[in-house]
This record gives sequence, structure tokens and C-alpha cells, in this order.
Amino acid sequence: MIYETVITTMNKDGSVHIAPMGIRRENENYLIAPFKPSKTLDNLLNSGVVVINATTDVMIIAGCLTGRHDWPVVDATHITCKRLAAAHAHVEARVDNHKDDELRPVFTCRAVYAASHAPFEGFNRAQAAVVEAAILVSRLHMLPEQKIRSELEYLDIAIKKTAGDKERTAWQWLMEKVDGYYS
Amino acid sequence: MIYETVITTMNKDGSVHIAPMGIRRENENYLIAPFKPSKTLDNLLNSGVVVINATTDVMIIAGCLTGRHDWPVVDATHITCKRLAAAHAHVEARVDNHKDDELRPVFTCRAVYAASHAPFEGFNRAQAAVVEAAILVSRLHMLPEQKIRSELEYLDIAIKKTAGDKERTAWQWLMEKVDGYYS
Repeated sequence: MIYETVITTMNKDGSVHIAPMGIRRENENYLIAPFKPSKTLDNLLNSGVVVINATTDVMIIAGCLTGRHDWPVVDATHITCKRLAAAHAHVEARVDNHKDDELRPVFTCRAVYAASHAPFEGFNRAQAAVVEAAILVSRLHMLPEQKIRSELEYLDIAIKKTAGDKERTAWQWLMEKVDGYYS
Repeated sequence: MIYETVITTMNKDGSVHIAPMGIRRENENYLIAPFKPSKTLDNLLNSGVVVINATTDVMIIAGCLTGRHDWPVVDATHITCKRLAAAHAHVEARVDNHKDDELRPVFTCRAVYAASHAPFEGFNRAQAAVVEAAILVSRLHMLPEQKIRSELEYLDIAIKKTAGDKERTAWQWLMEKVDGYYS
């Protein structure tokens, strides 16, 4: 099962790196497979710790894909790392081992601490649409424009019907990126 | 903003009625608009209380749409009602007022208690796909078959890529209902 989360890792200079990422849950372990090359990959190799943030704030996900990397964080509790201030829940984990790969090395991480900060409010179709659009935006170079456009048109229905301010802003950021790519 | 939740209300005989429903959040109030006629409508008028359950267990949502109405519940804390045992979080609310309507009367409900039971784990695309499919299934009589089929084909991609057992079972229940409708 794959969860779309936001991964926070520590850069060598002590600053935080924030990256939306689909992660796999396997029993008590979390499998994280960052692309090669990437900052998340460097940081996992270097620090051996990671925070998995579960948030419904889709502005963070859309923001990271559109050059908006600066989101409020607070110190993690059990590892030297940061978590998103907006996390509904977070898991602090240590890298147990990793398997190298040409494209996406896989890190098996073990939770050392977990905390819940805000109640889940229920599914929001606009949030799910932003997540789908964010995945499309991350694959603009791999997919034909017609497929991108027609899927976005479909997803836009849920935005129009069920979005709040955050979802509308996140959607707008992603659409600007799409339009910029094809202009 | 609309959240897809599961509403629990009390039938006159003391049994519980479980219904997936999109509800609107407006400041501190919850707006619930059940179709006329419906059990949820009768129960809201009759008892004046409701539990709004936020759950990621999509088997409950798909189950209620496919004749599987019997899901574990536990007593609410502050009102005479039940909540889903599988709720990630729930809100207990009282009806403040309602506005009649030919199609969907709107009940304004005020939260009297809220509790969180399990951490949000992050977005799962398959769960979102089940929610979309459930909405399509509830509108089989209103939408052309071709539209239903092509949207389901698109949603099936997320099921294949990101589902766990619960999501696959929920999806299968919905697909059986679609196939039954058109056979």
C-alpha cells in the first residue's frame, strides 16, 4: 500500500529538506525510494534519519513541486530532524538498511516514534485531485500533453465542487506550472 | 469545503443507520443535506442528533452502497447515538435548525464533542479512487454508461498501483454493482 506523504530530512548544513513522496508501508517498516540523484537520497545516506509527515495541507505538496520549499517545521522528538508544523501526524524513523538501484534505491526505515497532532476530517475530493495533479506535474516530461490536459480537466471537476481556499491555491500553482511548461 | 464522511444516526427502534455522505463545514457548524426521502433525513428530524465519522476504511463506504450495512459501532459519549468503531475521528453533533427543500433539506448541526482515535497515515490514491467510484455508483441512474466506464477505467489505475486489501475489496464490490446494473 502506498501513502502520499511529505518526507523531511536534514541537509548537511543543518537546514531541512522537504519533499512530497509516495512511501510504502510493510508491517512496521516504511519503504522510501527516492530518485537518483536527489537531496532526499543524499540526506538519507548521510544522516540515517527521516520524518514521514502525513498532512492534508495540499499547498505543501503543490508548493514543493512549484518552487515553494519553505514551510514551517518544528523539531522532531527522538531524532535530529524536523517535522512539518502542519502534519496531521508524523513518524520519526531510522534507516535500517538500503538497497541500491540505478533509478530508485530503497531505504527500509524503522519507526522510533509516532505522534498525532490533528484529527482526520474525512476525505476531500479536491485534495485527492491536487495529489493526482501533483503527480502529473512531476511527470510532465514523461507524458503526452493531451493525456495531461484531459486528466486535469477531469480532476478540475472535484476542485470546482469540493475545494476550500488551500486546495484552490494549490491547484492554481500546479496549473501555472503546466501552462508554463507548454508555453 | 466538502468532506466525504460516514454519518451515523439512530433509527426509532434503537438500531443504528450508517450512511456515507458528503458534508459541508461552515465555521464551527456542519451542514448535512440528506436526500428526500431517506432514513438519515427521518432520523435527523426525529432524534436531533448525529455522529460524523471520518474514516479511511473505504470498505464501509463501498459496503453501504452495495447492500453491506452492518459495520461495528460503539456508543457515542455525549449524545444518544453510535459512532463507527473504525472512525479515525468522530464528531458528535446536535441539530440546531433545518431548512426544508424539495430534494435535499439542509440541517445545520453544532458539534458538542469531538475525538480522534487513530493517526492520519497520508493520502492513498486508491482510497480516493474508491470514493470517486462510490459517487459514480450512487449516480448510475443519472449518468451515461460510457462516462461511467471511462471514469472507472481511469480510477482503476490508482487501484492497481496503490491499493491494499481493503481498497481492492471495496473496489470489487463497486465493480460488481456496476456490472449488475448494466447486465
